[in-house]
Amino acid sequence: MAALYVVVMAGGRGERFWPLSMNKLPKPFIPLLGASSLIQNTIARIQPMVPPERILISIGPTHLEIAREQLPQIPAENFIVEPVGRDTSACLGFCALHIEQRDAEGLMLALPADHYISDAEAYRCTIQMGLKNLDGATGVVFGILPVRPETGYGYILAEKPAVRADAWPVIRFIEKPDAPTAAQYLASGNYFWNSGMFLWSNRTLLALFQTHMPELYQGLCELRPLLKENKSNPEVGRIFSQLPRISIDFGIMEKISGLRLIPAQFGWDDIGNWASLERALSSDAGGNVAQGSYVAVESSGCVIYAQSGTVATFGVSDLVVVQAYGKVLVCPKGKAADLKRLVAALGPVNE
Amino acid sequence: MAALYVVVMAGGRGERFWPLSMNKLPKPFIPLLGASSLIQNTIARIQPMVPPERILISIGPTHLEIAREQLPQIPAENFIVEPVGRDTSACLGFCALHIEQRDAEGLMLALPADHYISDAEAYRCTIQMGLKNLDGATGVVFGILPVRPETGYGYILAEKPAVRADAWPVIRFIEKPDAPTAAQYLASGNYFWNSGMFLWSNRTLLALFQTHMPELYQGLCELRPLLKENKSNPEVGRIFSQLPRISIDFGIMEKISGLRLIPAQFGWDDIGNWASLERALSSDAGGNVAQGSYVAVESSGCVIYAQSGTVATFGVSDLVVVQAYGKVLVCPKGKAADLKRLVAALGPVNE
Repeated sequence: MAALYVVVMAGGRGERFWPLSMNKLPKPFIPLLGASSLIQNTIARIQPMVPPERILISIGPTHLEIAREQLPQIPAENFIVEPVGRDTSACLGFCALHIEQRDAEGLMLALPADHYISDAEAYRCTIQMGLKNLDGATGVVFGILPVRPETGYGYILAEKPAVRADAWPVIRFIEKPDAPTAAQYLASGNYFWNSGMFLWSNRTLLALFQTHMPELYQGLCELRPLLKENKSNPEVGRIFSQLPRISIDFGIMEKISGLRLIPAQFGWDDIGNWASLERALSSDAGGNVAQGSYVAVESSGCVIYAQSGTVATFGVSDLVVVQAYGKVLVCPKGKAADLKRLVAALGPVNE
Repeated sequence: MAALYVVVMAGGRGERFWPLSMNKLPKPFIPLLGASSLIQNTIARIQPMVPPERILISIGPTHLEIAREQLPQIPAENFIVEPVGRDTSACLGFCALHIEQRDAEGLMLALPADHYISDAEAYRCTIQMGLKNLDGATGVVFGILPVRPETGYGYILAEKPAVRADAWPVIRFIEKPDAPTAAQYLASGNYFWNSGMFLWSNRTLLALFQTHMPELYQGLCELRPLLKENKSNPEVGRIFSQLPRISIDFGIMEKISGLRLIPAQFGWDDIGNWASLERALSSDAGGNVAQGSYVAVESSGCVIYAQSGTVATFGVSDLVVVQAYGKVLVCPKGKAADLKRLVAALGPVNE
């Protein structure tokens, strides 16, 4: 069987985790759910299946240092530095070139760096199911059976197999729905949350770029010989920065057929904002979840994060209270998804 | 005219200002309303009337160091250290002995250390009116015309003078009322808040102790010769700790006649808890008041205190948010008066 390579996508700013996440420390590198950062959790989860030499970290130049610090087990040459952020199509195309250089027959498993997974064992079983079902498919996607009518996620419609089988044929990708539609999806049983995890042969992915994103593919062809030089080359930055900025969902997934979906056997959350912590952490008797030292008196349903010191809440409900880097955030859980509005008001000094 | 001595009473813990106020730094020593602490404000306000040599600071032994640090202009011998806290009767009796030692004919103006006064000029005018009206009275009290039906303060009922005069004869002292009664007091125009500021001749005060609190007076008589030794004497602590623990209101004021009340010409607040800051600080466009660096987005009616760093509120109303010593407090303004319940839950580590 072909060797499996993992691409961990660690881009993004994470303004929705102010004051913890800032340009210097975006979401994947924050210890949001315990002592380890989200990307450390992601690597620890996959490492029993894949040796560090076959784990690539796709990263922006400003976060290379923190990434290498947090992931000392990953070889230096496996940090794939994107000169600029150009969304997931360019990210995965660039990584595909790097995998091709090492192993033309390799498989690529693309993973977001910063999601919550409830059960690492079940997670690896699900990926094994994907590997077993890749043969004969364009690619494999991993779907999460919805547990609430979420309007913040993309969905995947799949067809329940006539006979009991692990893989469901994908019918189509669906953008974020409105609330009534999300409620229908929840009820149907055929709609899955798009986990952002993809599996395919690296060769197939490059062929998909050639067919469906010829402009991006042309850029990749220009980049290919430059990577072989194995030294930093300003030409790489120039070409990369001109690649189309488009997500892999829009650029490839929505256009192709022959995909299979593996329903996930684990709990999942994209940890999109502070309020998400409630779904990933155990709550106290008052229904509060917390990281760090806290005292919640006559308080319920709060999400508390104390990087240091102690956060004390008294007589409040459903608030997010965060203390980090000497800064304090207080907002209702229901506003946590809109935190970019606050960050915009803070201005550059407080980022 | 007899010389005026000022006694600034700086006892008390101030648990209602956690996490700023702790045993080590009680309320008078906190810069709650600006760069200066409340006791610094109090001294600065009275100093144009009274030289530092005639200002005595009544203080507990654990706060002597911070008091001397904050008030370098006050002579060392003017810090009157109470061996233990025994409420305001013992406090003022002890200070009366110290004034007597310096000037048997002196007047005593007793001032709480930690109140808010809106207008220092008007404040001094009001005290001058008190001095002018002391002759022939047992003592002078300063009353605040209520601006809300406050149930947290004691009241003084006084009789409007038949002809226009500065001083109103006091009818009686009244304990904290219930809400309907407080509303009647507010409507009447004859009920004043007890500001806790008193003026009398020092000799009269000692005579009042002799008549109305003979047990306490007996203790003072035992203390008198020991103070003349002008050195620390464990006997002072022993006698002081046995003085009756009772407030000057209960011990003297409620029992005596011949008091006059001067209606205050200034805004006043006892700054009893975090929510009180709202009445002593100017508010922003959203109706929030703040000390320190803050950003309030879509927020209204909040009281924010940032000792360092920045406090950001987003989409919340009527909350107290405090950051100090690495600790964070979040509670509704309406619960600020009950903060002792939170402090009790925190335990000694977090005090």
